[in-house]
This record gives sequence, C-alpha cells and structure tokens, in this order.
Amino acid sequence: MYLEELCKKAKSAKYEVEKLNERQKNSALRRIAECLVNDAQSIIEANQIDLDNGIANGMHPGLLDRLKLDEGRIQGMAEGLRQVADLEDPVGETLETFKRPNGLEIEKISVPMGVIGIIYESRPNVTADAFALCFKAGSAVILKGGKDAISSNKAIVESIKRGLASENITTDAISLIETTDRETTTQFMRMKEYVDLLIPRGGAGLIKAVVENSTIPVIETGTGNCHIFVDESADLSDAVRIVFNAKTQRIGVCNACESLVVHKNIADEFLPMVYKKLKEKNVEFRGDDATCEILPEANSATEEDFYKEYLDYILSVKIVENVDEAIAFINEHNTGHSDAIISENKENQEKFSRWVDSACVYVNASTRFTDGFEFGFGAEIGISTQKLHARGPMGLKQIVSYKYIIRGNGQVR
Amino acid sequence: MYLEELCKKAKSAKYEVEKLNERQKNSALRRIAECLVNDAQSIIEANQIDLDNGIANGMHPGLLDRLKLDEGRIQGMAEGLRQVADLEDPVGETLETFKRPNGLEIEKISVPMGVIGIIYESRPNVTADAFALCFKAGSAVILKGGKDAISSNKAIVESIKRGLASENITTDAISLIETTDRETTTQFMRMKEYVDLLIPRGGAGLIKAVVENSTIPVIETGTGNCHIFVDESADLSDAVRIVFNAKTQRIGVCNACESLVVHKNIADEFLPMVYKKLKEKNVEFRGDDATCEILPEANSATEEDFYKEYLDYILSVKIVENVDEAIAFINEHNTGHSDAIISENKENQEKFSRWVDSACVYVNASTRFTDGFEFGFGAEIGISTQKLHARGPMGLKQIVSYKYIIRGNGQVR
Repeated sequence: MYLEELCKKAKSAKYEVEKLNERQKNSALRRIAECLVNDAQSIIEANQIDLDNGIANGMHPGLLDRLKLDEGRIQGMAEGLRQVADLEDPVGETLETFKRPNGLEIEKISVPMGVIGIIYESRPNVTADAFALCFKAGSAVILKGGKDAISSNKAIVESIKRGLASENITTDAISLIETTDRETTTQFMRMKEYVDLLIPRGGAGLIKAVVENSTIPVIETGTGNCHIFVDESADLSDAVRIVFNAKTQRIGVCNACESLVVHKNIADEFLPMVYKKLKEKNVEFRGDDATCEILPEANSATEEDFYKEYLDYILSVKIVENVDEAIAFINEHNTGHSDAIISENKENQEKFSRWVDSACVYVNASTRFTDGFEFGFGAEIGISTQKLHARGPMGLKQIVSYKYIIRGNGQVR
Repeated sequence: MYLEELCKKAKSAKYEVEKLNERQKNSALRRIAECLVNDAQSIIEANQIDLDNGIANGMHPGLLDRLKLDEGRIQGMAEGLRQVADLEDPVGETLETFKRPNGLEIEKISVPMGVIGIIYESRPNVTADAFALCFKAGSAVILKGGKDAISSNKAIVESIKRGLASENITTDAISLIETTDRETTTQFMRMKEYVDLLIPRGGAGLIKAVVENSTIPVIETGTGNCHIFVDESADLSDAVRIVFNAKTQRIGVCNACESLVVHKNIADEFLPMVYKKLKEKNVEFRGDDATCEILPEANSATEEDFYKEYLDYILSVKIVENVDEAIAFINEHNTGHSDAIISENKENQEKFSRWVDSACVYVNASTRFTDGFEFGFGAEIGISTQKLHARGPMGLKQIVSYKYIIRGNGQVR
C-alpha cells in the first residue's frame, strides 16, 4: 500500500538522518537552498497549475495570494533554509548527568524525534520550512500538504530531494504524500508504527480533525483566541497603542488579539478612546451589555462570540469587576495561546501572569510577540497550545526528545 | 451527565490546587497519610468485597494478591504519601530567563498540567500513589480504576477526601469515576475540554485502547520488550549475572529482559552458560535457528516471539553478526523502553547507546534499573515509552508543563 510503503521508507531514513553530523546537515541545507533558487522556474510553472486550478475553482483572492510563488518568495524559502543552517544543532546535547550511589552514571541527552509528520494547508512555503527544521533536528519528515498546493509542493520536494541526493543523503529524509483525499489523510494519522510525532498546521477544523483521529502523539498548534485585559491602573494611551497593534497589525495570525477585557472603573474613559483608534481600521466591536451601554456603536456579543477566533476586523469586548474576574473569564474562553494584561499594579500583574492558563502571558506588551523569531528561537514549526511537551513557539529545541544512557560495571538489582 | 459534571468539577478544582503553596501541599499529604492509616479498617473491609467478588469470578491468584490490602500495605501507601511530601515542589521554578533586544524580558517557569487523568487496572495502591504525585505537581486528578478494585478505590478516595477537607482544600482535587463500564471509560478519553493529560497504567491492551480512542494528549507507559545484547568482547560471567537478574528478579515488570541478542563469535560459549544459570528458574529459551543449533534445549522462536513482552519465565534469543545488526534488530522489535549492551568495546558501547532508540540504554548493567527510585527521582507515575514530553521514568518534574511570562513597557510589533 502506497502510504504504508512511504512511511516505512521514512522510518528507515530516520536512522540515517539521525547519524548526520552538524556539518553535514548544514551543508545539505545550504545546497538545497541553491537547488530551490536554481529550480525557481519549474517551481513557478508548477505553482501556476495550482493557481489556475484555484481561479477555476473560485478560490478567495486572499488564499490565492498565500498560494502564489514568485522569484522573491522562492528566494525567501532559500533564505529560510540558510537561517536554519545557522541555528545551533539541538541534537546530542548532554542535558544532565548524575551518578547514583550504586555507581551507575546516568546521562540525559537530546535525541531526534525520529519521523515527524506535518499536515498543513495551502501555503507551499511551509514545505521547505518544515523540512528544514525537522531535518536540522535530526528527523525524517513526512509532509501532507493541501490539495490546492499539490503541484507546487511536488516541485519543491523534488528540488529538495535533488539537493539531498547531491549531498549523498537519503532522499527519503523528506516524503510528500501525493494523494490528497481525506481518507489518505486519516490513514496517515494512524501510522503510529512509523511516525513519532504529528504536527497539524492550519485552521481550527484541521486541528480538530487531527486531534480526533490521530493515534500518533500530536502537538496542537496555532488556534489563538488571545485576550488583552486593561486594568484600572493601566496607562490608557499605552493600552490603546497595544490593542491597536495586537488587533490590526496582521488580522489573520494566531497571536492577534480577538477579545478585549476592560476593568469597569476605566471603561467609561477607555472604551471610546480605543474604539476611536480602532475605527481607523474599521474594527467592529461586539460587546456585552455594559459595553454596549457605554459604546452605542458596539454590536451586541453572543456568548459564542467570546469563544471565537475571528481572524478579522472584529473584537469582542467584556467589562469585568476586577483582575480576578478577568482571569476567570479569560481561562474560560481562551485557547491557551497568548493573553496580556495592561496594568501599572504589580500585584495584579503577578496574579494575572501566574494564573492565566496560556502558553504566553504578557505584561504591558502586545500579544503579537508570540513567535519563534521574536523569542530569539529562529524559525518555528508552530505555536503549541497544549501543555504536553512544548508550549508556545516551537523552534529546533522543541522538536527533539531525549534519552538516558546509563553506564555501569555489572550492576544488577 | 455524570462524567461531564465530574470533569467540570475537576477543572474548577485545578485553579485552586495550582494556587496551593508547597507547605500547604505537604501538610495535606501528611494529613492524608494519617487518614489512610486511621481508616485502615474500613478500607480493608471494602477491599474484602472486591476480594470476595474476585474469588467468586475465579480471579487468578496472582491478581488476587495484587488486589489485596492489609495493614502493612496501607501503611505502605501512607509512607508513599509522606515520601512525596518530602520531594521538591516541581511547580513555579524559573527554568530560563532571557531579554530581547526590544527590552522584553521573557521568563520560562514550570506550571502544573491542570487536570491529569489516570486510567489503571487492578492494584488499588495506585489510587493513593497517583493522587499524591499529581497533587504535589499542582494538578487535580481524575482516576479511573479497574472494576475489580472499585470498592477498595472508593474507600481510599473517601479517606483522601476526608484528609483534604480537614485541610480546607477542595475535595475535587481528586475524583474517582465510579462507573466502570467500558463506554464510560471511552467517553472519559474524549473529555479534552476538561482534562489536560491522560496517562494509562496497565497492560498493552489498556494502553492500546487509550491511544486509539483518546483525544486528550496521552503519555504511553510501561510496555517493555527489553533486550540485552551480549557483544563478543563481553565479560561473559558479568553477562550471565546481568541477564539472570534482568530476566528473573521480577518477571512481571516492564523493565524485565524479554529478549537476548548474542554476538555469533561468543554464542557457542555463552549460550550454554546463560542457559544453565537461567535453568535455576526454569526459564524457557525460544531461539532463532542458529540458537537452536547451539542449544538443543531451546525451542524454536517464531517472528512473533521477538515482538513479545512475555512477563513470564520465557526469553527469546537471537544470534547476530555484529553490533550493527544487533542495533537494527533491537530497533525493529523493541518498545522504546530499556535495552542493554554488555561489552568491553568502547566503540560498540557508544554506537549502541547512541543508536538504539529507547528511553534508557544501559552499558554493562541490568535493565531493571529503569525506575523512578533507582534514578533518584522518587516515586514515579509511570515509565514513558514515547518520545513526546517525557521519556523513561516520570517523577514529579515530568508531570508539569511550562509557560512564558513576558514583561514589557508598552512594546508593540
């Protein structure tokens, strides 16, 4: 069977990839970057097939734009590979050593995951990015991209394989599942025997499908219903700047602000201020009753609104009694991604940052900083919203595992 | 609905448990230890109901023994709670801090998982052990024990709840699912909205069912097809001692040796030696053709034998050409738990310990040391055989998560 054969080959390849040293991996990444640039013409041609199909199928212009590859974007992909080559090798690091009273010496070292599966949607540049990170982390990767980008993805993967081959590295270090129907995707999620970790990258629907169906350990990424709480002690002009940035700088990203929580004592003053600023971008406010009373321009929010990741020029607004209610409200509605408090009160800052249950909690800064580059990790494979294994931005160090090596001289129990 | 109500209460309780400081948690654990001892009589009576049912249903004597509670075992449970109280609090530790060029200060701190679910089989002492570890790690716990032990588990949980109440701590810090049918168990595995982590403890069948059905992130534990490879340079008398210990010291545990891999150049000499020693415990050898030729007493192994975790006085035996074949054979058949090499050759030791893909790789020592106490972690919640999150023995530090707190002064992107 096609899929099982592909997974088997990836599993064999992992034993080769894990043995590559840092120099070999970096040299291959740089070589592949060259290949992508050299193959730009054929990649663009392949991409045109996807674009034509997209247009024929009435694809939304925003999606068409994400799908499109040109010289500049291919240069960007190549540059991404070079950046990963420049990052520190996360594999083979001694994380801890300790000696037991019986003389056993225990060493904990970082090791590759093995085979990492990535299921993603339309953007074809993910193909090169995800490969680069998994490869540098010593793992083989199996990619399952969107149907919309299949022709582009094939061309990119062929180019990567050419680069691998020219460095005498197994081309099974990367595999692309070329059958894009849903059934194959579901089967892939159950290839536990061969795949060590599965990362979905995409919308809430994709992530839900993976969580529901996968038997492979999953890291959930990227759904962000991010909140900003403006406390009564907040510097209100800072708060306006931060909300404006977090809501409108890029609306389609997971670390954009979706919900504003306001202390009742400053709501009268603050809401008109922030509304006026966000009006510049025509942001719709959907508020609870108290908000609508202060701000007649706001629409009435349903309970559902407060659970929504809009990814749009819409903001839900809730007025609360105090920081405790803010924390409880946020913990009830957030997705464990990023939430912020704007406050000059140290005690409330501390409460909020300790007890809000999300990967990244901000004090007086925009939620938009939840990002591998902004954290200084370099490229990221995604932003984890679960608590198992990794939380927040996942760079190279977050996609490795560890093992214990125990050295003795005949110890028995 | 009963189950959802129970999970909701646990989720509310997690916000209280995470706020308890170390002193409060330790005091509660010690108080609960007292409660268990005080309640010994009623726990033993409840246990007698389970034992009577077990006998009526023809339960295997070995299982009856695991199920049985007496004064001594209850003292043992209480002692276990006190030991957990003595361990370091894993929550609230600053793991890393770094400052970004834009002035953002990022702190990575350890935080509780939230709600941990444990699904386990017959031994009722797991009830107290699992509670103690989850509670000390700042999480609420939901326990789903075996039907066979339900009456004992209820009595133990009641006692624990009494202890919590007397320390003014929410009794929802521990919940026992009292409906023990399979359907409820399957529903529980899908309570993703309320439960952050699910740990199955038990046989391969239970673990498979959880992995197949859970939408909650799972840590797989405890299936161990552990190998010992005896290299040509091995000290053969050490090798005999180690294999004897790993195979026979306790046959029913996951870190017992199940498969022996022997270098062809010493097979003639070693196999009769090790067979003779293991004959003391009537261990059956199931070997490949080459083994059966050298050792006529061995039975012929099927390919299936090499995948088996016998948990019995049976050992599969394979003869290999060299360390590379040993590594490949082990990676094909092991469960990622513990494997050992007995060798005086440094290069082979290093190869084996780097490239055998398991949580714990031993050089010249018994696999039986894969254990929280033996590693110095104290009590363990299980031994992870997956690569996500934790690998090998999981003590307190392995059942927490982390978060980032990012402190700024108005930064926007």
